[in-house]
Amino acid sequence: MSLAIISPGRNPQVWIDALIFHQPDIDIQIYPDIKRPEDVEMALLWQHPPGYLDTFPNLKLISSLGAGVDHILSDPAVPASMPIVRIVDEKLTWSMTNYVVMGVLNFHRQITRYQADQKRKVWDMSNPEIPVKVGVMGVGALGGDVLDKLNYLGFPVFGFGFTKKDDFPYPYFSKDHLQDFLNEINVLVCLLPLTPETESILDLKFFKKCQTGTYLINVARGKHLVEEDLIPALNQGFLSGAMLDVYRQEPLPDTHPFWEEERIQITPHIASVTNPRAASPQIIENFRRLRSNQPLLNLVDRKKGY
Amino acid sequence: MSLAIISPGRNPQVWIDALIFHQPDIDIQIYPDIKRPEDVEMALLWQHPPGYLDTFPNLKLISSLGAGVDHILSDPAVPASMPIVRIVDEKLTWSMTNYVVMGVLNFHRQITRYQADQKRKVWDMSNPEIPVKVGVMGVGALGGDVLDKLNYLGFPVFGFGFTKKDDFPYPYFSKDHLQDFLNEINVLVCLLPLTPETESILDLKFFKKCQTGTYLINVARGKHLVEEDLIPALNQGFLSGAMLDVYRQEPLPDTHPFWEEERIQITPHIASVTNPRAASPQIIENFRRLRSNQPLLNLVDRKKGY
Repeated sequence: MSLAIISPGRNPQVWIDALIFHQPDIDIQIYPDIKRPEDVEMALLWQHPPGYLDTFPNLKLISSLGAGVDHILSDPAVPASMPIVRIVDEKLTWSMTNYVVMGVLNFHRQITRYQADQKRKVWDMSNPEIPVKVGVMGVGALGGDVLDKLNYLGFPVFGFGFTKKDDFPYPYFSKDHLQDFLNEINVLVCLLPLTPETESILDLKFFKKCQTGTYLINVARGKHLVEEDLIPALNQGFLSGAMLDVYRQEPLPDTHPFWEEERIQITPHIASVTNPRAASPQIIENFRRLRSNQPLLNLVDRKKGY
Repeated sequence: MSLAIISPGRNPQVWIDALIFHQPDIDIQIYPDIKRPEDVEMALLWQHPPGYLDTFPNLKLISSLGAGVDHILSDPAVPASMPIVRIVDEKLTWSMTNYVVMGVLNFHRQITRYQADQKRKVWDMSNPEIPVKVGVMGVGALGGDVLDKLNYLGFPVFGFGFTKKDDFPYPYFSKDHLQDFLNEINVLVCLLPLTPETESILDLKFFKKCQTGTYLINVARGKHLVEEDLIPALNQGFLSGAMLDVYRQEPLPDTHPFWEEERIQITPHIASVTNPRAASPQIIENFRRLRSNQPLLNLVDRKKGY
């Protein structure tokens, strides 16, 4: 019984080292050098070639190498009955929240304005703060932590999601109340899971519903954003700026207009990176549970898509 | 009985409006047009001309227009027996903490690195976080709030001050243990009051005691820093960067080398600005207490210097 790692274009060595550190006798096979596909019962995936899983006649469990599973669910060759688990990592939540809080504070305290003033040797003390009210779309483990931290820092916060929620600790809007949600806020954080319902949600029609000058932070998935609508939304004033960590194509192509747009701060998908050392015990525990037929950890609900 | 506002070079109108809003019949005189100096019993000061208070034969109380009182205590013409009060404003604390948290997160998540990468169209996902341990010098109302917020965000925090403290909620080092404090941290936040003991504390000798690559955030007073020692400390690697909000001369002169130093982020003394609307009730309450001989609010301890 072996574990396959299939993450084309990424160096799998840190995962191999971390898994072996936690279970020295584990049998790991690495894509594309998988010699005994019939032995593979669990596959660790990150952007695998679609259809490739047909190679494994005895596959019983798929694990994402991150928190997201959209890269798995988008492959129609993945059987509907195949259990899928994902990584839940406190460090991942911590990093994501720090990134978002940084983005909110840089907008609130206008870091790019002061950087430009420094270059021009301008001393301008006027209006040092932009008042902010922060809306978080997607209020799961990640969005919930962002709300908690910003609330503790003293910012007004609002949540939005596709399901109804009772007793949510902050003002919360479900999908029929998107306009009410957007009326409350001037910083918008996208932390939605990527599902057919949320794909391309951030388009020009959506931005037109925002308060003038809203600031966008997208740390979920590139496919949430209709990229060609972003610069028009900035030019038309619906948005005043954006901080993006994810893109439809990664690495972002050299010719992409986001590189040269000063109102957009881009980072190379580093808001939150799964830590192999921290995540390996969950993977090994699920491998063990699979063999002993016990309930799996962090099982994905296929209907919800996360 | 009247109140004098003496803040040369600043527009006093926002203060006048705020004070009148809270007490419409208040008698205010504004420097330099003070016609009835003998009526002045309370003076609101921000960088008044030294010796000028001798103009007021019946002065009974001085109030700073901000949290700091070093600009008052540095004038030898201020009688030792004259009570001095200062502004304590939650909004001021809130702004200061947001500024410091922004500085810590921008160092931790390397915002300037990603800005430079964007300019050069470089996609580099390696090492997205610099581990940080934050030391705060000065653990009064401002420093204490910075420690609380960074601790809640999950960062290791350490305090330093000139007095001994028992039962401090975080690891705390008093003045004889400066080296132990600096050994623990790689981000240094200066929030000390400006006193003869703390003036020029941040000099090359001090920076040599820091861990290699420590990041400096000075939001206290310009005179805490020996400015000509900062670039040498960066060049010699004791420090890796700095964010400064205060300077020996403000506005920072055009010829000052900080403007053009990329490792130094400068802002024009906007980390925390006293809000006249929020501060006026304290001033009016002290004016009232002065007249009715009641204990004053936020009285400065002249021996401590704050």
